[in-house]
Amino acid sequence: MIDYEELRIIRERRPASFEPPVKRYSIRWERSVDLAITAYYGAQAPTKEAVEQADFKQVMLAAFASDCGPASVEQGFFVDAAGQYNFVFVAYWLDPLRHERWEADSQLHAWWNDPIRLAGTIGLWREVLRVPIERMETLYAYPDYKVGIARCPPSTFTLTRNSGYFGAMRDRIPASAVDSLATAMAFPQPVKRHSAGTRWLVHVPKNLTVIRSGQYWAKCGGEQRTDYLVKMRPLLEKGTAHLGQYPEETGCLSMRLSRCVEAGGRERDESFNHAYFLSLAHLEEWSASHRTHLAIWRHAIEMMKAYGEKRELRTWHEVYVLPEGGQRFEYVNCHPRTGLLPYFEGSRLE
Amino acid sequence: MIDYEELRIIRERRPASFEPPVKRYSIRWERSVDLAITAYYGAQAPTKEAVEQADFKQVMLAAFASDCGPASVEQGFFVDAAGQYNFVFVAYWLDPLRHERWEADSQLHAWWNDPIRLAGTIGLWREVLRVPIERMETLYAYPDYKVGIARCPPSTFTLTRNSGYFGAMRDRIPASAVDSLATAMAFPQPVKRHSAGTRWLVHVPKNLTVIRSGQYWAKCGGEQRTDYLVKMRPLLEKGTAHLGQYPEETGCLSMRLSRCVEAGGRERDESFNHAYFLSLAHLEEWSASHRTHLAIWRHAIEMMKAYGEKRELRTWHEVYVLPEGGQRFEYVNCHPRTGLLPYFEGSRLE
Repeated sequence: MIDYEELRIIRERRPASFEPPVKRYSIRWERSVDLAITAYYGAQAPTKEAVEQADFKQVMLAAFASDCGPASVEQGFFVDAAGQYNFVFVAYWLDPLRHERWEADSQLHAWWNDPIRLAGTIGLWREVLRVPIERMETLYAYPDYKVGIARCPPSTFTLTRNSGYFGAMRDRIPASAVDSLATAMAFPQPVKRHSAGTRWLVHVPKNLTVIRSGQYWAKCGGEQRTDYLVKMRPLLEKGTAHLGQYPEETGCLSMRLSRCVEAGGRERDESFNHAYFLSLAHLEEWSASHRTHLAIWRHAIEMMKAYGEKRELRTWHEVYVLPEGGQRFEYVNCHPRTGLLPYFEGSRLE
Repeated sequence: MIDYEELRIIRERRPASFEPPVKRYSIRWERSVDLAITAYYGAQAPTKEAVEQADFKQVMLAAFASDCGPASVEQGFFVDAAGQYNFVFVAYWLDPLRHERWEADSQLHAWWNDPIRLAGTIGLWREVLRVPIERMETLYAYPDYKVGIARCPPSTFTLTRNSGYFGAMRDRIPASAVDSLATAMAFPQPVKRHSAGTRWLVHVPKNLTVIRSGQYWAKCGGEQRTDYLVKMRPLLEKGTAHLGQYPEETGCLSMRLSRCVEAGGRERDESFNHAYFLSLAHLEEWSASHRTHLAIWRHAIEMMKAYGEKRELRTWHEVYVLPEGGQRFEYVNCHPRTGLLPYFEGSRLE
């Protein structure tokens, strides 16, 4: 990647001579990486059992294990705004050509495109994000738990100088040195597409912003576990719910809180939020000013002060500001409130 | 687009205080444009008649006329290295989301993906290039004939300060201010794929370089027409043939010289070369040093001196240096020497 710091023409948000109050880490790559593919593959149905009985999970797992499969895969589930159970794989590639080959080569291509997918009670969706490295930032509280894109070799943690102030997220995105990353678009009117029995593509605008933020409490014991489950998690759920309920107010088009599961299907003490905002500025505005996020922030600071290096909770996030074009948001036999299906221009494929 | 001149960290090739000896023009856009789609859609068969009798042309023309169709389309034909007749459409979009919608919405999607395309004597191919504006340059000798990407509104010609010296092509590509645009790849070994009756994707590497250069002699009369047909065209054909015959020596992976045709099918007094080079440096090296190109260059300079503003021939080119990923090179029931089918990683779709 080009050294954007050398190219900087937009002033950074970091106050002069600011020192981060606590250590925070970002991912760096030990070889040159230009572009990451982060792909969400999901299946939905009225019940968990219906998803389990379908062949989605076996097909995906076989495909992931095949040639050119992802560098990392995680699994989780959530119940969406329409009350449907969704199972989701999050798969990462650092080599876009391997991902292209994988989507083309594997049995998956034939299975995914089979017209039989349009019948029955199962909906399928994929949100395949193509993210230039300079339009991405990551933040990890401790360098001892790799998750998200950090699971792709050859990642390494480095201390970031950009944390602890409002605007640090933007400063951590290299392209922000030369690009305001703004959107020209007003919040789009949602539409109700006739999506059952059909296959839709949604065409998302430039600078759409994606956040995946995770919580890992498996190592929390005693009072830290109690604190997470009794105080922190309810605050997170409240923030998540607020974003899901007030899209136009917040600029948040879709919000999903997933519980992670093991390869074998057992629930992990881990969860992640996955949300789309109309722009980075919308995400910043919510983070900087909304009471639900401020409550999360304040509680996290308190815990940090109380436990310091002995803190057992691991939190992290990755944020992408998407470039124009090249993304794939596909919804197959899904209900009309799935993901970004209510928004933007769409194409009905069949 | 970001102002790359403001970001420059790589010295330009332009000699200090150099003034272009003759006026040359490039395209600028009167509104913000981020990315162009330049898409080549072709059909091949042993004879022209076989292509004419197939439904390719009607299907494509109907699709181009439909919603979200291209901003400009040109048509031509050529005979390829295997002796097959190829008819080709060159279509341009400045809005990648419109192109995505078009490929997805139109009847074309169903027709192109129908398994029946794998049978019979017709081969189909598409080479869909996604080009960030900062990885593109154009050069027109006179600002009175719009062709190529210049046919997309809202294009306008502006005088370029970067012409008339070796390295000017690179200097005209905005991203060259911050990026060497080099390839890490040695010239790839060609392979013979079993391509008849199958559908292949080819995955092209970063910084693959595309040139489309055109010649328009419809306005040439008298001695200028004679000069073009008797002297210039044979030189061009010799250069074209050399590139086609010595891929490894020149870095030129594919070279096609097409004759343009009217919408109604009549041949125009116009042609264009369309070539892929492993990198910009390969194209530069050939332009700067090979006798066949130097002969073209010298003859063009002579004619310029002789006729100046009265010159009637119109020549132009557009050069793209492709980013990593997001390109689509697809070959359906084609012979194994078609386009980039002999090169790079491939995926057999069916």
